[in-house]
Amino acid sequence: MKLFVSGRAPSPRRVQIFVAEKGLELPTESVSIGKGEQFSAEFTRLNPDNLLPALVRDDGTVLGESIAICRYLEALYPTPALFGDTPEQIGAIEMWLRRLELLAYLPAQEAYRNRHPFFADRGWPGWRQGMPQIPELVARANRIMGRTLETLELQLEAQPFVAGPAFSMADIVALTTLDFAQDSGMEAVSDLAGFAHLARWRAEVSGRPSVASLEP
Amino acid sequence: MKLFVSGRAPSPRRVQIFVAEKGLELPTESVSIGKGEQFSAEFTRLNPDNLLPALVRDDGTVLGESIAICRYLEALYPTPALFGDTPEQIGAIEMWLRRLELLAYLPAQEAYRNRHPFFADRGWPGWRQGMPQIPELVARANRIMGRTLETLELQLEAQPFVAGPAFSMADIVALTTLDFAQDSGMEAVSDLAGFAHLARWRAEVSGRPSVASLEP
Repeated sequence: MKLFVSGRAPSPRRVQIFVAEKGLELPTESVSIGKGEQFSAEFTRLNPDNLLPALVRDDGTVLGESIAICRYLEALYPTPALFGDTPEQIGAIEMWLRRLELLAYLPAQEAYRNRHPFFADRGWPGWRQGMPQIPELVARANRIMGRTLETLELQLEAQPFVAGPAFSMADIVALTTLDFAQDSGMEAVSDLAGFAHLARWRAEVSGRPSVASLEP
Repeated sequence: MKLFVSGRAPSPRRVQIFVAEKGLELPTESVSIGKGEQFSAEFTRLNPDNLLPALVRDDGTVLGESIAICRYLEALYPTPALFGDTPEQIGAIEMWLRRLELLAYLPAQEAYRNRHPFFADRGWPGWRQGMPQIPELVARANRIMGRTLETLELQLEAQPFVAGPAFSMADIVALTTLDFAQDSGMEAVSDLAGFAHLARWRAEVSGRPSVASLEP
């Protein structure tokens, strides 16, 4: 197996942290999104979706989508379980993953891609052109993210981790999304001073070896 | 347990089909989104997210998000496995679920909510107001859906079902999304005459007892 990632891009970073939490070591290659290398003929042959991350298996088949790669690895290497190991945990983790995907990651992506000149005419991932930016999406994204931060603050006041008592994939997605939103200058996350429980959780998760070991 | 659904709304319908495929019988109550009943005081007490579907467990805890409810039920009732039972199937089904969610369901929802007068000032689910419609999203949604249809057509030429050789949750999401997109008048799906493999798959899946038994 070989895992294709891209610097600190948030979706591949999810998989990298997941792999480190599992104690796995996978051959990894970085494809520069900044240089457009995901559209190269070589990478397109590997993954016609032109998206990262991608896991290329030994038989040449490719698995895309960060969460799909992680679930595949979880099925191969079940311990520690990062998608839960009781019905209640499995349900709770998936519920939070869905909320984070639609109400945090998607807004962070929309705010970035519909604002930054780098994405002119490709406001949606995987498109090389023909996808004009929609500036109104930036305000919508910030409103949605603002509410999500309040939801997370309440949840982290009641629970040590995003999906409950144990560290899970939901924490990985929440952390990488928050970091990405801040790195990309999203307004809704520019001042988190009022979010004490989020800050407590974030410091703790950021200090885990799986996260800290990835930093440059 | 009690499952709250809403007529033929696509997200609750996913769970209803899933439950029927499992051969389960769950007490079910319909909440009318058309009448705004999801914002009633009674339903808000049950599910403060004001979203459907919702599964209320016997201890009063609530699980939201259609896929989370299905994964919870799959953990309780593993057979037949609709999220896969080998690492390869698990990965493939999740990859297709992610693609369908972002590249088919989200576009169908965006095209509907940002066009229909019923959703004026609440262009995003779960908001009662303060979320203006963004008409440009309709065109973007149709472009994304158009490409997704081509992807599905190729996949269904090569495989009997969306995620490969076996019926899975990915077929449930694809079918309910396609039906919803057509029911709501989405342009990209108004003429599917050129999609022979999609049509073959759709007729087959629509004829399953789990689907046919739900129709009015």
